[in-house]
Amino acid sequence: MEKINMLQGLLERLRDGVVVGDGGVIFALERRGYVDAGKWTPEVVVEHPEAVKQLQREFLRAGSDVIQTFTYNGTQDKLTRALGKNTISCQQIADKACRIAEEVAKKGDVLIAGSITKCASYKDGKGKAAVQAQIRSQLELFTKNKVDFLIAELYFHVEEMEWAIEEALKTGLEVAATMGIGGKGDLNGVPAGECAVRMAKAGAKVVGVNCMFDPDETVNTIKEMKIALDDAGLSPFLMTQPNGFFCPGAGKYGYLSCPEFPFALEPRVVTRFDVHRYARAVYNLGVRYIGGCCGFEPYHIRAIAEELAEERGKMPLASEKHKPWGKNLETSYNEFLRKR
Amino acid sequence: MEKINMLQGLLERLRDGVVVGDGGVIFALERRGYVDAGKWTPEVVVEHPEAVKQLQREFLRAGSDVIQTFTYNGTQDKLTRALGKNTISCQQIADKACRIAEEVAKKGDVLIAGSITKCASYKDGKGKAAVQAQIRSQLELFTKNKVDFLIAELYFHVEEMEWAIEEALKTGLEVAATMGIGGKGDLNGVPAGECAVRMAKAGAKVVGVNCMFDPDETVNTIKEMKIALDDAGLSPFLMTQPNGFFCPGAGKYGYLSCPEFPFALEPRVVTRFDVHRYARAVYNLGVRYIGGCCGFEPYHIRAIAEELAEERGKMPLASEKHKPWGKNLETSYNEFLRKR
Amino acid sequence: MEKINMLQGLLERLRDGVVVGDGGVIFALERRGYVDAGKWTPEVVVEHPEAVKQLQREFLRAGSDVIQTFTYNGTQDKLTRALGKNTISCQQIADKACRIAEEVAKKGDVLIAGSITKCASYKDGKGKAAVQAQIRSQLELFTKNKVDFLIAELYFHVEEMEWAIEEALKTGLEVAATMGIGGKGDLNGVPAGECAVRMAKAGAKVVGVNCMFDPDETVNTIKEMKIALDDAGLSPFLMTQPNGFFCPGAGKYGYLSCPEFPFALEPRVVTRFDVHRYARAVYNLGVRYIGGCCGFEPYHIRAIAEELAEERGKMPLASEKHKPWGKNLETSYNEFLRKR
Amino acid sequence: MEKINMLQGLLERLRDGVVVGDGGVIFALERRGYVDAGKWTPEVVVEHPEAVKQLQREFLRAGSDVIQTFTYNGTQDKLTRALGKNTISCQQIADKACRIAEEVAKKGDVLIAGSITKCASYKDGKGKAAVQAQIRSQLELFTKNKVDFLIAELYFHVEEMEWAIEEALKTGLEVAATMGIGGKGDLNGVPAGECAVRMAKAGAKVVGVNCMFDPDETVNTIKEMKIALDDAGLSPFLMTQPNGFFCPGAGKYGYLSCPEFPFALEPRVVTRFDVHRYARAVYNLGVRYIGGCCGFEPYHIRAIAEELAEERGKMPLASEKHKPWGKNLETSYNEFLRKR
Repeated sequence: MEKINMLQGLLERLRDGVVVGDGGVIFALERRGYVDAGKWTPEVVVEHPEAVKQLQREFLRAGSDVIQTFTYNGTQDKLTRALGKNTISCQQIADKACRIAEEVAKKGDVLIAGSITKCASYKDGKGKAAVQAQIRSQLELFTKNKVDFLIAELYFHVEEMEWAIEEALKTGLEVAATMGIGGKGDLNGVPAGECAVRMAKAGAKVVGVNCMFDPDETVNTIKEMKIALDDAGLSPFLMTQPNGFFCPGAGKYGYLSCPEFPFALEPRVVTRFDVHRYARAVYNLGVRYIGGCCGFEPYHIRAIAEELAEERGKMPLASEKHKPWGKNLETSYNEFLRKR
Repeated sequence: MEKINMLQGLLERLRDGVVVGDGGVIFALERRGYVDAGKWTPEVVVEHPEAVKQLQREFLRAGSDVIQTFTYNGTQDKLTRALGKNTISCQQIADKACRIAEEVAKKGDVLIAGSITKCASYKDGKGKAAVQAQIRSQLELFTKNKVDFLIAELYFHVEEMEWAIEEALKTGLEVAATMGIGGKGDLNGVPAGECAVRMAKAGAKVVGVNCMFDPDETVNTIKEMKIALDDAGLSPFLMTQPNGFFCPGAGKYGYLSCPEFPFALEPRVVTRFDVHRYARAVYNLGVRYIGGCCGFEPYHIRAIAEELAEERGKMPLASEKHKPWGKNLETSYNEFLRKR
Repeated sequence: MEKINMLQGLLERLRDGVVVGDGGVIFALERRGYVDAGKWTPEVVVEHPEAVKQLQREFLRAGSDVIQTFTYNGTQDKLTRALGKNTISCQQIADKACRIAEEVAKKGDVLIAGSITKCASYKDGKGKAAVQAQIRSQLELFTKNKVDFLIAELYFHVEEMEWAIEEALKTGLEVAATMGIGGKGDLNGVPAGECAVRMAKAGAKVVGVNCMFDPDETVNTIKEMKIALDDAGLSPFLMTQPNGFFCPGAGKYGYLSCPEFPFALEPRVVTRFDVHRYARAVYNLGVRYIGGCCGFEPYHIRAIAEELAEERGKMPLASEKHKPWGKNLETSYNEFLRKR
Repeated sequence: MEKINMLQGLLERLRDGVVVGDGGVIFALERRGYVDAGKWTPEVVVEHPEAVKQLQREFLRAGSDVIQTFTYNGTQDKLTRALGKNTISCQQIADKACRIAEEVAKKGDVLIAGSITKCASYKDGKGKAAVQAQIRSQLELFTKNKVDFLIAELYFHVEEMEWAIEEALKTGLEVAATMGIGGKGDLNGVPAGECAVRMAKAGAKVVGVNCMFDPDETVNTIKEMKIALDDAGLSPFLMTQPNGFFCPGAGKYGYLSCPEFPFALEPRVVTRFDVHRYARAVYNLGVRYIGGCCGFEPYHIRAIAEELAEERGKMPLASEKHKPWGKNLETSYNEFLRKR
């Protein structure tokens, strides 16, 4: 009962205001040593739950309205390939990730989103039934743990995304769907606009883009999506969760094609000011679910929440110390800093 | 009793191996909204203790052997200027900061260092007695809370540092002393080597450099210090805690003179590989207390601990997922990533 | 006779279309070894005239409509300080610089601008008469060599600029006047808008900004100038020649305050795409004299000329090989490059 | 007669001292509008010879001891593909490029190198005879124009390089051979060391690396080559001409895989200080032919010549204004600059 209430909550929140997403959990945890950068699987939820909890808690304090379960790449096919057979199971991960998210969520008025993504079986060409079976194990645990809604994210092929949405809708939960694409479309060349239309037609109430490209490119991609949706007479909610690394000129693989990926991306990290610009730009385009992905640290999420404080009617916890656009320097003791 | 034991612990640890310091607390917390970037005072320990605790805990997990109390700029003169009269007192902050550090330290075999720094009274020309009075309030709380040793850090004038060491030694605790200088010496032009000699003669058993300059410049500065100490027949332990932002060519004020300070330093952030190089370079020079300062996130500290894993006989928690120099990519599913 | 014709030419050209300026001569020549980076004086025109000629020729080919005499910092007070007494005189430099510009200009339909800038005597507080005497020597040579108009540029104080304009107008030539300022105004804090009004009132028919700040900051500064000029009922032509190095957040001294100045600014260099954006932005604001300063290489000037090719009714020499926004890659032999 | 003399000249010069190469002609000319960035062919030598001449002249002034004919990608197969049939022929280009180089070379004591590179026919799998026929047309013109020696450069497959060396040696000229590879070896995975051995065995008296990777990576690659050559008992002269863009972590395709290639590489450009380091590092390894490739502007070549001024017994023209490591700033009028 309560759950259904909450689910309405997501769509209502989007209708009435802005939902701030969370940031890049796997990238932050890789740096800190909990994730293998060749495999990118989420066994840390079992091995070091405290590390996950603490990072998600910081996102919450920074202003996130949603905590995504850390189940990225947590399908059994990927886990088996990464960790071997009979080790940590897909179910264990989904279960533990849900519990961590719940504990974090207790401290704030936030929604929990069960997160699914592309699986190895699609790339291996095993077909629709195999792909849907992979995510079904995760979805069952999300239902059991009563998450508030689902996010199908970072799909590289809109076909796999359609299968995922179809399967996800069987849970009865609402589905937000974001592709990992830029202006060149999906890996088969399906344009961004067409991807958006197909996601909406497949039943996703929230559609958009996440990861792979920087905020600037993402602004362009969501613009294309909006135009195509308008043309098709569709009006799902829009959602963007770009990555936090500048990669202008990158091809279809986005920031993966930067030679600095994944260990030396520091010079490409966006500043808080870049995030202010991004948040304002997508808000003006009509996007109402605004977050980040890989490279978005809690302070970047905070910049979204601060930029949209008026629209949301609230500031994130502790942000009273942040004055907009570097005003703090005016009280500096160093004359040359005050002058900036 | 136990305390005295522990204090010997510091010097013994330095004699027998390597002590890994912690990273930049105030910079990380400013980004997250808990610190005012014009004032840089540490009232967050009272206002949001959980945010401090969680960050320090992550440093500990990353391999830090020392947790510094977060009392930076916590002298009464600075607090009054920043927050007004009769608000949060110097004593409250020192007390709370010690308690947080203790709670964090419970989970590992780490030492707690009471941290003091330059005060407003010196800059205002109020003289030795006034300066020593400012830090005395902090030192009393450190004694009461039984920290393991003291760090006097980020002094811009070696004269003020000498006064600080003199006062700090009255507690009976050992003192580590690091100036905030580069190759141009202190703000009065006292060369780095001479600063080192004067700190050692003043009674600091550990001397060195922290903050203000990047790892590369810091390697040069500690080299100068070592040469001067050798010439003077002195052999304190050496310590470096540079900042994590490249700023080659910066003048006496180091990274403060970068126009990107403090809000847009992202493109200057050092990578984990830069930190590996730094840790090896200073270790080879004989430095045994190796940490970071502003800009050093937990993952940078982890890079120190990983680089020196053999010398220390241990890896930090969870680092088994980190293979040296990007080896992880060899197991990537993307052919073009495996090739890197 | 012919000269007067040409002078009308400048204002007519600005009225009827766009005038593309040239780029950063002194910075390019410093790199190549012909200029001392402590003194920044232009004796290269006497010592290695071929090096100057060849660079200016490349600017002309890239689309410049104006060649400025390379007389920057060529007042006697600066030359004496840099080179000693009785060496190369102010007159020799002005004379030689004019001859070089003439030879270059022969190959195209371009105007020659005599260039003056701030002198040491102003900074030393020697007063109006002394300051005007310094530039008078240069102005005499410009008259003798029949330059087409004058540019008073890179002034840091609007007061000195007013004196310079007053003196320059005595030649009977038109004067374009650009301050070396950003959004914080001149070094005495006179706001950019007020500077513009005072330059126009002093008699400059073209006013604006040059050097010191990047294109983005310069767009903002010229916007402030335009607003103030409109409010004052003044409508001189507008001119911008920013530098080619990103320095967001820099204080009053602009890129001088970057620690990378002057030898390691490479990572801050703007790309051709940044210049396209800049040219379009200032054109839309009504600026009609559009060029660059330090850091603008010939290819950056070409980007201005290409961006405004339609408005100007012509492309620069050879630009038929440049297709807008990187289209060239579509014919690449490497599949992964074609995909970009 | 004279020619034979000169040829001995190259090897003698390498034996007795250091030969400074030239820099990146095609990249500099692409920026300036004379080259199509999809095709990268050298028809500019026919269309705008002055633009080539002027750039090569600046390299000569900067200290280059060699001028390479600008015949890169000038084989008939590439020209036909780029420009269509019956347009500019391979012979025209080689002829014109030689004449330009000669004119430039008149002004200094420099050698002229005929330059050949990989052709389309190899990639298309047309076999050895076809590949050798392609370069033969160029080689004939080089012989006719009496160049001083030959450079076979930027080969991606050592097999094609062997064919090129075999053909080139038939002219009777000495051959310098450099592969376009990094630490991963050639495109077939042949290790750098083995490539070096095979080039030397094929008859090249000078072997090494050019383009594709930054100076740091190139230092490592030439080190590998040296080790393998030593092991094989071979001792050709060593040569390096890296590109001027930092691309750490790049895969086999080097800087091509940076998303900023080719239009937005500015933030990756090496500074003069980086070039000083590079020149010293390879000199210490025993390299005696030291130059640059794409991205190396004349001022970078000057940095090589300045770094090795003592070893070469001379400074490049005009470099008396360059004081090492930024000393010029000490005479700056701005106090804050003097302090750097």
